[in-house]
Amino acid sequence: MGENDESEIIEHHDDEEMEKTRTPRYHAHSFLGSVASSEKDGYSSTQSSHRLLAYSDALISIIATVMILPVAHTKFQDNEELKQSIQALLTTKVAVYLMTFLIVTVAWAAHIRLFQVIKRIDDTLALLNLACMMLITVLPYTFSLMATFPSNTLGILLFCACVMVIGLIQATIVLYGFSRPFFLNDQIQMSGNQAYYKRHILEVIMRVPIMCLFASIFSFIYIQLSYIILAIVIFLPYISQCLKWIWNKAIGGQVEDRPDSVPFYTYHPSEPLSKERVEAFSDGVYAIVATLLILDICKDNVPDPSVVKEEFNDKLLAALQEYGPEYLAYFGSFVTIGLLWFVHHSLFLHVTKATRLMGLFNTFSLAFVGGLPLAYHLTHEFPRGSLNELEAVQISCVIIFFAGLFQLAIWVTALFTQHETLHPYVRYGGREHAFMLAKLSLYPCVALGSFAFTCILSRFSTSIFHMMEIGVPFAFILLRLLVRVVLAVIRWLFCPVRNDFDSVPVEEEDSQLPINDIVT
Amino acid sequence: MGENDESEIIEHHDDEEMEKTRTPRYHAHSFLGSVASSEKDGYSSTQSSHRLLAYSDALISIIATVMILPVAHTKFQDNEELKQSIQALLTTKVAVYLMTFLIVTVAWAAHIRLFQVIKRIDDTLALLNLACMMLITVLPYTFSLMATFPSNTLGILLFCACVMVIGLIQATIVLYGFSRPFFLNDQIQMSGNQAYYKRHILEVIMRVPIMCLFASIFSFIYIQLSYIILAIVIFLPYISQCLKWIWNKAIGGQVEDRPDSVPFYTYHPSEPLSKERVEAFSDGVYAIVATLLILDICKDNVPDPSVVKEEFNDKLLAALQEYGPEYLAYFGSFVTIGLLWFVHHSLFLHVTKATRLMGLFNTFSLAFVGGLPLAYHLTHEFPRGSLNELEAVQISCVIIFFAGLFQLAIWVTALFTQHETLHPYVRYGGREHAFMLAKLSLYPCVALGSFAFTCILSRFSTSIFHMMEIGVPFAFILLRLLVRVVLAVIRWLFCPVRNDFDSVPVEEEDSQLPINDIVT
Repeated sequence: MGENDESEIIEHHDDEEMEKTRTPRYHAHSFLGSVASSEKDGYSSTQSSHRLLAYSDALISIIATVMILPVAHTKFQDNEELKQSIQALLTTKVAVYLMTFLIVTVAWAAHIRLFQVIKRIDDTLALLNLACMMLITVLPYTFSLMATFPSNTLGILLFCACVMVIGLIQATIVLYGFSRPFFLNDQIQMSGNQAYYKRHILEVIMRVPIMCLFASIFSFIYIQLSYIILAIVIFLPYISQCLKWIWNKAIGGQVEDRPDSVPFYTYHPSEPLSKERVEAFSDGVYAIVATLLILDICKDNVPDPSVVKEEFNDKLLAALQEYGPEYLAYFGSFVTIGLLWFVHHSLFLHVTKATRLMGLFNTFSLAFVGGLPLAYHLTHEFPRGSLNELEAVQISCVIIFFAGLFQLAIWVTALFTQHETLHPYVRYGGREHAFMLAKLSLYPCVALGSFAFTCILSRFSTSIFHMMEIGVPFAFILLRLLVRVVLAVIRWLFCPVRNDFDSVPVEEEDSQLPINDIVT
Repeated sequence: MGENDESEIIEHHDDEEMEKTRTPRYHAHSFLGSVASSEKDGYSSTQSSHRLLAYSDALISIIATVMILPVAHTKFQDNEELKQSIQALLTTKVAVYLMTFLIVTVAWAAHIRLFQVIKRIDDTLALLNLACMMLITVLPYTFSLMATFPSNTLGILLFCACVMVIGLIQATIVLYGFSRPFFLNDQIQMSGNQAYYKRHILEVIMRVPIMCLFASIFSFIYIQLSYIILAIVIFLPYISQCLKWIWNKAIGGQVEDRPDSVPFYTYHPSEPLSKERVEAFSDGVYAIVATLLILDICKDNVPDPSVVKEEFNDKLLAALQEYGPEYLAYFGSFVTIGLLWFVHHSLFLHVTKATRLMGLFNTFSLAFVGGLPLAYHLTHEFPRGSLNELEAVQISCVIIFFAGLFQLAIWVTALFTQHETLHPYVRYGGREHAFMLAKLSLYPCVALGSFAFTCILSRFSTSIFHMMEIGVPFAFILLRLLVRVVLAVIRWLFCPVRNDFDSVPVEEEDSQLPINDIVT
């Protein structure tokens, strides 16, 4: 609150002596006054927040995703059944991964909203933001502690302490921002009742830390209650958002349940997320997942010189042939990640605004994308022909299926509010609409088809799975051709004048082929 | 070349029937014609390349940095001397890391120049770019093979094959781009002799792959020669750039040695790099380095439940106290990375354009930043008081010193060409100039001071080193105060009229304190 008092003094100066800066009298007036004036003139102390936000997005997305590594690097015994190992994994490591991913995403959403209010920064705000980032990086560790020692209060206390300190830092950022109104976004800067905004934003920010305070108090009395409170903190915004959206759809109209929410501008929780930051966050996740793969290749697949000399008669190529399946797994996984990014990229080209529900589906999709290193490890870990190999392929299919399905869900959600969220070009009936839908449904279909094959054909091997993964880009190119041909055929059917289109029967055959290619 | 022929047909269509699109006659004209027209109208098939480039930057920066992990995770024996271990490391792993970093940076610079020509993309270009990225991720692996089996031709052949395929893909991108001129940047689009540009750009692109072709041929005859060719490929652009710059400075004037280079526009190798992409690449490196740390914390520092039960009588807090030094090392390293990013961020706020030499210094600085995980591992690996502990601190100091020094070098280089590269505000004598210089010299001074202390005080422990690392942010805040006070004093000295500035003596004492704080 000391900062707050100081801010009022500076505002007082601003009102009184806005035009008199740089006069000697003013400089000699007081040290505080000279600080305030030098803080104000000069672009160099006030900066655009663009790069700070890009860096924060990169950091947060990597933190969210990197926790898949302990899951992926779990050593499996080939003699025990994979199902049991997976169950053992699920209880701790996968849960830690998913919880970390979700809580970090919640922190990221709060960060977005905060910097929709604070539009310009200076060095102090940059340093405060870095402190905030440092504490967010510690969250995964507290989750690991909680998962390993569920009945010990220390994990939950550490977690709550981190969240509370983050809340305090964010409150400091808001107070600092309001003390120098030129940092705020223009709408709040213009408005008359800044004090009202400030109180409202602080209330929203402090909600989660206060819930964590209660959780930490209850952890001494009845620890299960603390976990319930934490679950509410993580999931409630999403669940309430889902319910509200379904409710709105069921009722029909877009009922504004809080008519007073409009003046709050960007700090209302259901305010659309910034599209740029959703993209930057997603890019970070895809990039780190893609590069985690090459790390493993470099670490595990360079043979030992002595082994090559003894076993392979100094023939490196023969030694490397041992790793054949792993190279195939690597290329297959990389292609899959690359194309999922490509689909995401195509999708967000058409999107003008990301609603909260779309953000939620995007988070779920990314959580499954983050699971791809696990799929990669499982599918090259087991010897060919074992039962575990089949199950590894099935798990990979499930991961790819849900990653693709949630991307499709983003699109379907966008279509429901298409006048707000989509470019006119891709709305119902637009020419690109059909192609976009085909692109988005490709991966769910491929994954579903593969899964079905593993159930029917018991000799379905991982190599075939990876070959199929590598084949998908060609399916994309065929798909583009297919959609174009189908559109041409439709056009031809509706304008039967043009009977010189003699190559159609051949192309129609082509158009049947890709579907088979995609499914098999 | 088939693509090239097709392009001419399409261009032919463009000239002839630009205004007649969407008429039934035109659609029925030929299948190729309909493809060409649907490719052209509609924003959806032509996209801004912004996000593709951001994603590529993230991928490439992570690939470059992630190779530090095998270096950092080397297990050291405490009984042997660190110096010897480090020497063993240097011969292979550190060399692989540095070579990977440099070659990936060269590939990145080529990628920048390519997409300064190609300004808009479509799905095909996006997929070709992804293929390019996939091959770049394989480069570190080929380096690992080369380092492990230096006398075997396979590593060098694989590397050359990758580079040649990347070259072919880039050539395809250029041909594809020139076949649809609306993808190109406006200057080339407007110009009359596109064929001339195309030939020139293809020549520049194919230069490196052709050198690699020679290297792969020579590898069968005399393998040392291949390595020399590769070294030329990696270092020559930098060395020639350095020499040219020094030559220009020595001669005095900005002698344009190739007067015909102006029409080549953005494809001249000494063309400044895009500032946005330099920032994005640097952000990626800083972000991945910061998050590699938390990965280690989560993996290694969660105690085993059975150990806690047996050894610590089920007291988790006591068990965690064992890890105290590692937490300290983590926070110290995170603060260092965060502040180095902060300095970089402040620096590039003032920069309007990054010349090649500045890009080179930035690469060197980032290569040392990438070494920080190694510093982190070394400084918490050894028991307190051993000789190795001192050496670990010294190595960390060297890494931080060079990371900071090359940042300072960027600034000094920018000052030499300040009219092109800097905002008017921070040129010689600008008010922010002094502060920027102070910021940039803080880390080199701290590192140098710490190094000197390890030589004088043999009991200088890593804990003190990490405490010092954590203390640096406060030095930053003091620094800002210090510079402001010094400026106020100078102003006061030159305008002695204002003698009501009674608080100066106290502040002058303050201004002496920070310097001591920084050095210790």
